[in-house]
Amino acid sequence: MEDNFSKQMAFLIEIDKLKRVERRAKIMSGDRLENDAEHTWHLAMMALVLQGHANAEVDLLKVLRMLLVHDLVEIDAGDTFAYDTKGNEDKFEREMNAAKRIFGLLPEEQAAELKELWLEFERKESQEAKFASALDRLQPLIHNHHNHGDTWQKYGITSGQVLSRNREIADASDRLWEYAQELVQKSVDQGFLQE
Amino acid sequence: MEDNFSKQMAFLIEIDKLKRVERRAKIMSGDRLENDAEHTWHLAMMALVLQGHANAEVDLLKVLRMLLVHDLVEIDAGDTFAYDTKGNEDKFEREMNAAKRIFGLLPEEQAAELKELWLEFERKESQEAKFASALDRLQPLIHNHHNHGDTWQKYGITSGQVLSRNREIADASDRLWEYAQELVQKSVDQGFLQE
Repeated sequence: MEDNFSKQMAFLIEIDKLKRVERRAKIMSGDRLENDAEHTWHLAMMALVLQGHANAEVDLLKVLRMLLVHDLVEIDAGDTFAYDTKGNEDKFEREMNAAKRIFGLLPEEQAAELKELWLEFERKESQEAKFASALDRLQPLIHNHHNHGDTWQKYGITSGQVLSRNREIADASDRLWEYAQELVQKSVDQGFLQE
Repeated sequence: MEDNFSKQMAFLIEIDKLKRVERRAKIMSGDRLENDAEHTWHLAMMALVLQGHANAEVDLLKVLRMLLVHDLVEIDAGDTFAYDTKGNEDKFEREMNAAKRIFGLLPEEQAAELKELWLEFERKESQEAKFASALDRLQPLIHNHHNHGDTWQKYGITSGQVLSRNREIADASDRLWEYAQELVQKSVDQGFLQE
């Protein structure tokens, strides 16, 4: 029991490192890159506020738990850019090794539980995973639109790539997918995103 | 309905500002101050992992929802340092005005619901509020111990002040209060915190 508490604290101290994993998109003020910890908080807030727009009813607690842990593997594996084909080839293997180490800091039962939550998110099969994943796609799109296409221009991303990458939002929410398409169209119209 | 969606998105964009509200404690690597958004994510992770140590059974979804919104008022009101007596005098008034403006961006029903969650957290009466608040006290203590008393030394804080400030952790969890006291004692022993 006491040993369990020490393991939990070791895990909670280790995951502080998520605050140093930088993403490709900037925070909305545009003055620095966003990190994974604040990104995760933002997704959890989106789930809280937007759950009513999911196509299917979702268990909010499950969505939140899944979101909270979904990027922890990036402490070891780093943030793999959505449009980096090569980086995405061995992404799952790198992340699986990270999951074993990081969740493995916890007491056995809790480690298994959180690792399974992460895997459920990755599989995108359950309604909760689909919704959580849709938010994870939508959030950087909002950031990029808001920051005048900053990341898209830096990496030469086209509207076709953005639409193809984000089409799965439709599996979770028609309303969010409609909104995503509006943002892409506006970004093209305003010259932030090449067609 | 459509108008509601626009309001939700306006709220979700506005709260991105939480990522720029700096706290007094540094992240554990010690290289910069922590911000409220990443702090909030860390508290949510603590709730997920440590809920079994609460004295009373708590509704985890409620704890998480409460934690996710608990610092949003600081977008307008700023982070009031725990040991700043003067700043704490008008803290509630400043935060109530902030709550009205920020939650007020949401559709009416949702605004009322999230504002009530924030108030429940502030009141510290429900088991969920007590547990959420205990985590909010414990987390900077862990950070400060980990960073060799950085904030305590900078502001000349004593172990008596830290114990008095954090005593309410005991209302939520005997185990977490015991741990908090251990950290304070270790910090004194190691010369990070004056007695």
